[in-house]
Amino acid sequence: MSQIFEKLVPYMNQAMAFQAALTLFEWDQETLAPALADEYTANVIGEISQAYQKIMIDEQVKKLLEKLKEEKNFSELTENEKAIVKEWNIIVEQLDSIPEKEYSEYARLQAKAGNIWEKAKEEGDFSKFAPCLEEIINYKKKFISYRRKKGSYKKKKDYDILLGDYEPEFNMEKLDKFFHEVKQEIIPLLKKVEKKNTEIDKSFNHQSYEINKQREFCQWLAAYVGFDFSKGVIGESAHPFSTNLHNHDVRISNHFYENNLESAIFSIIHETGHAMYEQGIDSDITLTLIGTGTSMAMHESQSRFFENMIGRSESFWTYVYPKLQKTFPDNLRDVSLEQFISGINKAEPGLIRTEADELTYSLHVLIRYEIEKMIFQEDVKIKDLPKIWNEKYKEYLGLVPSHDGEGILQDIHWACGDFGYFPSYAIGSAVSAQIYHHLEKIMPVNQYLEEGNLLPIREFLKEHVYQHGKRKSTNEILLDITGEEFNSFYYIEYLKQKFQ
Amino acid sequence: MSQIFEKLVPYMNQAMAFQAALTLFEWDQETLAPALADEYTANVIGEISQAYQKIMIDEQVKKLLEKLKEEKNFSELTENEKAIVKEWNIIVEQLDSIPEKEYSEYARLQAKAGNIWEKAKEEGDFSKFAPCLEEIINYKKKFISYRRKKGSYKKKKDYDILLGDYEPEFNMEKLDKFFHEVKQEIIPLLKKVEKKNTEIDKSFNHQSYEINKQREFCQWLAAYVGFDFSKGVIGESAHPFSTNLHNHDVRISNHFYENNLESAIFSIIHETGHAMYEQGIDSDITLTLIGTGTSMAMHESQSRFFENMIGRSESFWTYVYPKLQKTFPDNLRDVSLEQFISGINKAEPGLIRTEADELTYSLHVLIRYEIEKMIFQEDVKIKDLPKIWNEKYKEYLGLVPSHDGEGILQDIHWACGDFGYFPSYAIGSAVSAQIYHHLEKIMPVNQYLEEGNLLPIREFLKEHVYQHGKRKSTNEILLDITGEEFNSFYYIEYLKQKFQ
Repeated sequence: MSQIFEKLVPYMNQAMAFQAALTLFEWDQETLAPALADEYTANVIGEISQAYQKIMIDEQVKKLLEKLKEEKNFSELTENEKAIVKEWNIIVEQLDSIPEKEYSEYARLQAKAGNIWEKAKEEGDFSKFAPCLEEIINYKKKFISYRRKKGSYKKKKDYDILLGDYEPEFNMEKLDKFFHEVKQEIIPLLKKVEKKNTEIDKSFNHQSYEINKQREFCQWLAAYVGFDFSKGVIGESAHPFSTNLHNHDVRISNHFYENNLESAIFSIIHETGHAMYEQGIDSDITLTLIGTGTSMAMHESQSRFFENMIGRSESFWTYVYPKLQKTFPDNLRDVSLEQFISGINKAEPGLIRTEADELTYSLHVLIRYEIEKMIFQEDVKIKDLPKIWNEKYKEYLGLVPSHDGEGILQDIHWACGDFGYFPSYAIGSAVSAQIYHHLEKIMPVNQYLEEGNLLPIREFLKEHVYQHGKRKSTNEILLDITGEEFNSFYYIEYLKQKFQ
Repeated sequence: MSQIFEKLVPYMNQAMAFQAALTLFEWDQETLAPALADEYTANVIGEISQAYQKIMIDEQVKKLLEKLKEEKNFSELTENEKAIVKEWNIIVEQLDSIPEKEYSEYARLQAKAGNIWEKAKEEGDFSKFAPCLEEIINYKKKFISYRRKKGSYKKKKDYDILLGDYEPEFNMEKLDKFFHEVKQEIIPLLKKVEKKNTEIDKSFNHQSYEINKQREFCQWLAAYVGFDFSKGVIGESAHPFSTNLHNHDVRISNHFYENNLESAIFSIIHETGHAMYEQGIDSDITLTLIGTGTSMAMHESQSRFFENMIGRSESFWTYVYPKLQKTFPDNLRDVSLEQFISGINKAEPGLIRTEADELTYSLHVLIRYEIEKMIFQEDVKIKDLPKIWNEKYKEYLGLVPSHDGEGILQDIHWACGDFGYFPSYAIGSAVSAQIYHHLEKIMPVNQYLEEGNLLPIREFLKEHVYQHGKRKSTNEILLDITGEEFNSFYYIEYLKQKFQ
């Protein structure tokens, strides 16, 4: 091992340990922690965040990274080490500009914000969350201004800096183009689809489904899709999510509604897609800076690939549906496979992003993207956001929320400070279509699914996507698989073919 | 605030955060973490332990503590601050002697040992655990030798140093006397009791009790006894235990057997006793070095007080038994309150400490105490331990384990490096009897219990025990409540009265 890199390792080990601890706290807060713990636990989380930041940008670390900028030193590194150093430089650039104290104050604020948001959402009242949101946004803006003073951020626009944290290969210019192309096709398509909607009877989905049986079926389904229970656990939380301490401890959560069977089923397939990505990462990069998925969009592509391309296909359910019917004989005995497939693929405008169908999903993301741009590029007033939100829902989806709980407060992201994250969902959808298009060319996907054999699909993804972690970027992976960089073509074609 | 103390605070905040993280990892490993996570998570835990140690004995910390040894500086401190500084000095003395690298290697070993022990226990084969145990003991011995080189440990015997970590006010001299007094009374008493045992029909306890209903009843029972669900959670694990991130996040676990109703019931009362102690600690010392129970024995006194003095009394069940009968009508309809009380108080020698009755419990502890003395004072060979264990069980309890799983491997403590811990259980039993004797003098305990009113008891304990955390020692608390220091008299009297 390079002597310089060797000196970096103890710092990385500590930082990764703090990060794993923060992940565990996050998991615990969402799934288990008692109601009154927050105030105190927020301090604990603040301290650990601070320790993480401190060690990642320790003076010694910065000196070593500087040395590694010299070609003769850098060339001594292995490929993994090079990728780690590259990632570390990015993080130093992000963190180094933010004063330690503000970073930990912000972490404390974030740890509390989740609860404030949750209560406001329950009450459907944005004004209860607004002051907290404003505080978060002000921190974000301050952090951007600090970051602009340094390095490669100098010329970047505010919102592009945030976008870059999740998708280094994307910016507003590319996203404006992408969303424009998508919008142009989807809105007319949606109008056509709505006309045919009356033919589809989806009432089966809203009968009463015993929650314990849903839970049992979803456990089975996760394992069937490919969740490895020896390297992960499944919990329950208000909102399904996935997280990972490392590649041998990957955690996903689910939620259950008695009168909505689809919700738990597609949530668990989605989160299992995320989990398989993390569980499939090579162990030689576990607990290093590159030992996790390469980008949010690539992560979303993996979850959406299984949720939509695989999980909503007739071939998939040809094998799985009899099992579901057996679990709920009273509800599904008289629902044919064809009817079930039509039901789970029914596209209609709704208010809730996480419950949206494939066709309308990108419009939900687009609305958030446009509002985030307004926050960071146009200095919109926070108190005006619900009005803007509702107007955009009216314009794109023809619906208006009856209260903020099903409107602007529906997502936790802003409470976590995750601005610039939403676009990844749409990019991910497009990436998954691009990969799926290629996969169909090289293997009999539908035949495998009908036989209940998901292994060849998983193995393909493990080889080309999962194992690499952050060793390869989103576009590098796409180039490797499909010979093309990211584009909207296959996504739009996929939607047109499916919904026309 | 004293300027010197003020400078210590940031170090304490970081250390407490690392400790909270370690607690959460411990909880998670026992209740949830996936099977294959251990190897990697052990590294994470090792790193965080190391960070904890490093910050607790930072050079700057030691300088500040030195300054506070001067009377004029120390006298400026508040009572809480004085207690924190006192505690910190003890910890510095414990940790400072151990090289950082060895401390974290040991933490890593510990993190793995739990799993190795568990497997060996399942197979009932001590030889599978022996190498790991030997490694742990060697670390312990090495740490003792490091500690002896410094400060107040110079003249202490090896095992007294370990005992002192859990019970600063106890040593072998006191414990030999205590156990001698107890043994002298219990062994003859046990023989008398055994003769009468045939009269007690306890078969009701081993019928089939639906686990979901046990779970539900135990949730209710925990709340009834006084567990505050807004400041704690209840989970499940192989062995019931309690832990706490801070006074607003206290966690206990339970376990359930279909054919043993008593087990879950008395485990949950026991752990609730621990939990109420931590939940009752003053918030002005939360996340400080004194914001937890004062000693293991005082903790055990609180759990055993509720488990035994309260939880096995007729008055307690006069109120609670109808609810239990209603939960299990088929099993308990024909079991009278008197029969139930006789059953749950039946004393008979058994092999398993955690399932032992009040009378034989101390003998289980005595055996472990004698073996630990042999390990640290007489250099007994590790491979001989199962034989010694079995001989002692034969001598004191008249029974021999059929395999190591129900013998020497039954407890997790040694896998955690917790040598010197077991005596706290017996001391705790004695403390609880001493407190109970006083309580009966000052309030109508039985009347309250019959009325289902545990509040006056809880409030008394909160005022005299819980709130203080480590501000007061075990003996200080006993003196305050009863006017006497610790002694075996009330414990022996209690057992004689109950079982004669």
